Amino acid sequence: MLGVGDDCALFSVTPGMQLATSTDLLIEGRHFFSDVAPFALGHKALAVNLSDLAAMGARPLACLLGISLPQVDHDWLQAFSQGFHQLSAQAACPLVGGDTTRSNDGIVISVTVMGEVAGDQALRRSAAQAGDDIWLTGTLGAPDIALRLLQKRLPADAALLAAVRPSLEQPSPPWAFAQRLVGVAHAALDISDGLTQDLGHILAASRCGAELEYHRLPVASCLDGLDDLLMRQAILNGGDVYQLCFTAPQKQRQHIKELAQQTKVQVTRVGRITTDSGLRILDPQGQAMALPAGGYDHFS
Amino acid sequence: MLGVGDDCALFSVTPGMQLATSTDLLIEGRHFFSDVAPFALGHKALAVNLSDLAAMGARPLACLLGISLPQVDHDWLQAFSQGFHQLSAQAACPLVGGDTTRSNDGIVISVTVMGEVAGDQALRRSAAQAGDDIWLTGTLGAPDIALRLLQKRLPADAALLAAVRPSLEQPSPPWAFAQRLVGVAHAALDISDGLTQDLGHILAASRCGAELEYHRLPVASCLDGLDDLLMRQAILNGGDVYQLCFTAPQKQRQHIKELAQQTKVQVTRVGRITTDSGLRILDPQGQAMALPAGGYDHFS
Repeated sequence: MLGVGDDCALFSVTPGMQLATSTDLLIEGRHFFSDVAPFALGHKALAVNLSDLAAMGARPLACLLGISLPQVDHDWLQAFSQGFHQLSAQAACPLVGGDTTRSNDGIVISVTVMGEVAGDQALRRSAAQAGDDIWLTGTLGAPDIALRLLQKRLPADAALLAAVRPSLEQPSPPWAFAQRLVGVAHAALDISDGLTQDLGHILAASRCGAELEYHRLPVASCLDGLDDLLMRQAILNGGDVYQLCFTAPQKQRQHIKELAQQTKVQVTRVGRITTDSGLRILDPQGQAMALPAGGYDHFS
Repeated sequence: MLGVGDDCALFSVTPGMQLATSTDLLIEGRHFFSDVAPFALGHKALAVNLSDLAAMGARPLACLLGISLPQVDHDWLQAFSQGFHQLSAQAACPLVGGDTTRSNDGIVISVTVMGEVAGDQALRRSAAQAGDDIWLTGTLGAPDIALRLLQKRLPADAALLAAVRPSLEQPSPPWAFAQRLVGVAHAALDISDGLTQDLGHILAASRCGAELEYHRLPVASCLDGLDDLLMRQAILNGGDVYQLCFTAPQKQRQHIKELAQQTKVQVTRVGRITTDSGLRILDPQGQAMALPAGGYDHFS
């Protein structure tokens, strides 16, 4: 699986394009549960990195995988590899190199992705403009509820867990749609740390503010009937949503809907960028709602 | 240190060049001792990856760093960062992105390097030709002796340890020299796993054999006086030598010496590639010597 047969992998970047690259470390017990299905883990290890490429509008080119295991478990590795390679094939992002070592304790996975994008057109956090619409792909909330159930911070509910678990363990970042946003959208990022925290990064980098209409936020239908406060926390602060939040000029509304339809991605317009600083969440009456405290903290 | 402020780093590859990339995982207690000086560790984490670029003749472009720590130790991180950045500046290989997380137990470091090389001219393991000279940069043996002393597999010897330790902890791969070998040398790789094992990779990939003249092998002078068998094991099988073994046509001898002088690298011609398969080590009388068993095994 990792045999590349030379000291480095070699590949080409299309003339005129820049290389976009990102790396992630996934640690057992921190970023995934010890008993997660290895197929799902292989998928997710690549998915979270493809999500970073999507957030720049970059086309996937290749990936590298480092994996450290306490012992060699061929069945586990084979299932992990199948999950990784299935997504790698879907995203046309071949595994070109890697490193396998033994760990003392627990599984460690590092994934590096490389993609290409016209450098001056990459979607950047700093490119939002006042008056832009704010859009989301996919839905919010389900990964956070899955995490709470698995961490036993919510009462056991097998039916709910079955419904939300795939969103946490096998996210599908919209890499094809994201490439089509280049030249159409302004700013973008993924919602890995939660909507309010991640949108806050766009606002800080772009020196502007935003209004979100709470009732427009797309919520996974399997969450219907959950407690209001829990819903609000899951929707506004829940992390692990490997979907995009992006901003675009109002004149692109129809075009964005068409691109989403062509690439089979759900998009929802949820608010607008403002000249005032700060993030306001509006209720259906247009009144500001209180923000639940905190988003995801990687060092918590 | 890791703040890059967007989902991916972006950089350019020179038109006509290919991207060369490699990744390594370093695990506390496996690849480095828990009490290693953090400055040295920062240096080595990048050096082992620069060595992979050197083995392809690639020019360093950029690197990514993932680091996972059981707790945030600012002094440790600062020293680590200084060691990493000093080498990064020397090699003109800027840190463009990364990921910092908390681990459950022990330090985990992942480094990915990217470089560029004319794709059809990269130094490959498979390019050795019968009649080629075999060359080494630097010296052999010292890192292996340092490892044995630190693992207490040799009797304590503070003076010897002080002499050999920098070779293990702060290797200096010959990245500038290596770039000059493109178009001059045929095959190359680094000696991270030990000379006989790594040269074996060239021979297997190139479908040829080799003769090494044992008395020509460059040995660190601080090893003078050590037991013969220990020396032979350290020289022929000792890993962690982030130097190059490369093959080149005989007509390039003078040119290679000049390139080495210009880039301040020690080079030694140590043998030749043969049409017969297999690796023979010759004593000063031209008789085949017995090979010590085994090289470095990453899963031992």
